[in-house]
Amino acid sequence: MAPAAEVAPRILVNGEALGHVSALDRGLGYGDGVFRTLRIEAGQPRWWDEHLARLAEDCARLRLDCPSRDTLERDLSDLAPLPAWGVLRITLTRGEGPRGYRPPFPAHGTRILACWPDPHALPRDNIRARVCDLRLAWQPALAGIKHLNRLEQVMARAEWEDADIDEGILLDRDGRIVCGVSSNLFFWRDDGLHTPALRGCGVAGVTRGRLLRRAVSAGIAVREGEYVLDDLWQAQELMLTNSLTGLRRVARLGEKIWETPVVSPRLRELLDA
Amino acid sequence: MAPAAEVAPRILVNGEALGHVSALDRGLGYGDGVFRTLRIEAGQPRWWDEHLARLAEDCARLRLDCPSRDTLERDLSDLAPLPAWGVLRITLTRGEGPRGYRPPFPAHGTRILACWPDPHALPRDNIRARVCDLRLAWQPALAGIKHLNRLEQVMARAEWEDADIDEGILLDRDGRIVCGVSSNLFFWRDDGLHTPALRGCGVAGVTRGRLLRRAVSAGIAVREGEYVLDDLWQAQELMLTNSLTGLRRVARLGEKIWETPVVSPRLRELLDA
Repeated sequence: MAPAAEVAPRILVNGEALGHVSALDRGLGYGDGVFRTLRIEAGQPRWWDEHLARLAEDCARLRLDCPSRDTLERDLSDLAPLPAWGVLRITLTRGEGPRGYRPPFPAHGTRILACWPDPHALPRDNIRARVCDLRLAWQPALAGIKHLNRLEQVMARAEWEDADIDEGILLDRDGRIVCGVSSNLFFWRDDGLHTPALRGCGVAGVTRGRLLRRAVSAGIAVREGEYVLDDLWQAQELMLTNSLTGLRRVARLGEKIWETPVVSPRLRELLDA
Repeated sequence: MAPAAEVAPRILVNGEALGHVSALDRGLGYGDGVFRTLRIEAGQPRWWDEHLARLAEDCARLRLDCPSRDTLERDLSDLAPLPAWGVLRITLTRGEGPRGYRPPFPAHGTRILACWPDPHALPRDNIRARVCDLRLAWQPALAGIKHLNRLEQVMARAEWEDADIDEGILLDRDGRIVCGVSSNLFFWRDDGLHTPALRGCGVAGVTRGRLLRRAVSAGIAVREGEYVLDDLWQAQELMLTNSLTGLRRVARLGEKIWETPVVSPRLRELLDA
């Protein structure tokens, strides 16, 4: 079934109601920038403080200037009224510069906010996932950052057409589990909650960070480690997190089926509280 | 010394004299596209057939539609007169699509040509290079392609400010030599001409391909292999190639100095013939 046509977003570029950026922008030329995708809930960006914090961290990693909270909130009020439910993407690039990889200094960054009303307010749970063939490259200099170099994710997502499959699980070159194509991964076993450490690849999502902190506060044993597929086959429950969909349990991965929730309802409660 | 201010390029986007692209373009959002940078010489793009061939190959690797030769040549004539000396960048992206990594099908790609007149018609030779700290990630799915995910190159080029240093040499995670930040690498020793194989990273440049073919035709022993820094220290001559600068010999890499050319004049002749 073809998805419903998407409603056009409202877009601000550097605070102006423009739908375009310079063809010489380094975001386009080299993927020289970062982004975040947030859920708009009841007309407000959800987990705003956490997204701002991650945006600032990612900018610092790439030595990009991060716009101030005031600037971003002024943009949000210029986009008002935000939809009751929707999606906000914030993209920050290093802007234009002379030709060549060398980052211009000072850089005049580009700031793009795009806001989509989203009819799919309730993402489905008990999803089906697959293991992707593409292996993520190990690059500690970029690991964790939600940067604009996302061809690996594009190629991984192109691996399947089946609309029943919601997400693909990605491994690194050495067979370690990393994440989903657009989500972070958690699993549960007797000794607690586990998630792959993101030392060489993967995006350290806001929802992942929030769940880790809240689970620890709730007295749950949590571990970031190195895991392989066998760890998933042995897991009592497998879950994926993402800022748009929150926490979702995986009901099926390949041939493996997990019939009933174990901890996902409690973790979702912790996350949403 | 600050570089002279760059003259603004003339730009065509999908054949129109526009300087901008949609803020929703996947080239910007994900780096979902490819590019090439060509030398304009005597008002003509140099090595045009080879660049077209590589563009088509790179598009095929990413399953992007590649514009026809006619389309690109119509763009070129719309940009005419091209400068006597200059630089042409061709960027092809997957264009706009709904949110998410999944590539839209059919895609309506974006085609950008930007042409700069370039006062630096004669690049300097006998250059100085350094070994970069950043290690390239190993990703066979993308190796060789001149795609828009170039943050590694941006970070590597940001490692030095010294205007006397023209290029940085990049190694992979396992210490194998790969390429320069914006060039391919060759070295000469008693048994012939050597260049790193690009199985896991690096861009297979047009100048590299041209030099390999022509050296073989000229009866020179040529090998693509796996090499480490020690191989460079032992080399009789070290050279870098790039479509804008052609072949340049490295006179100094770190503390190592190569006083006189050995084969670079002959190889440059082969390349330019």
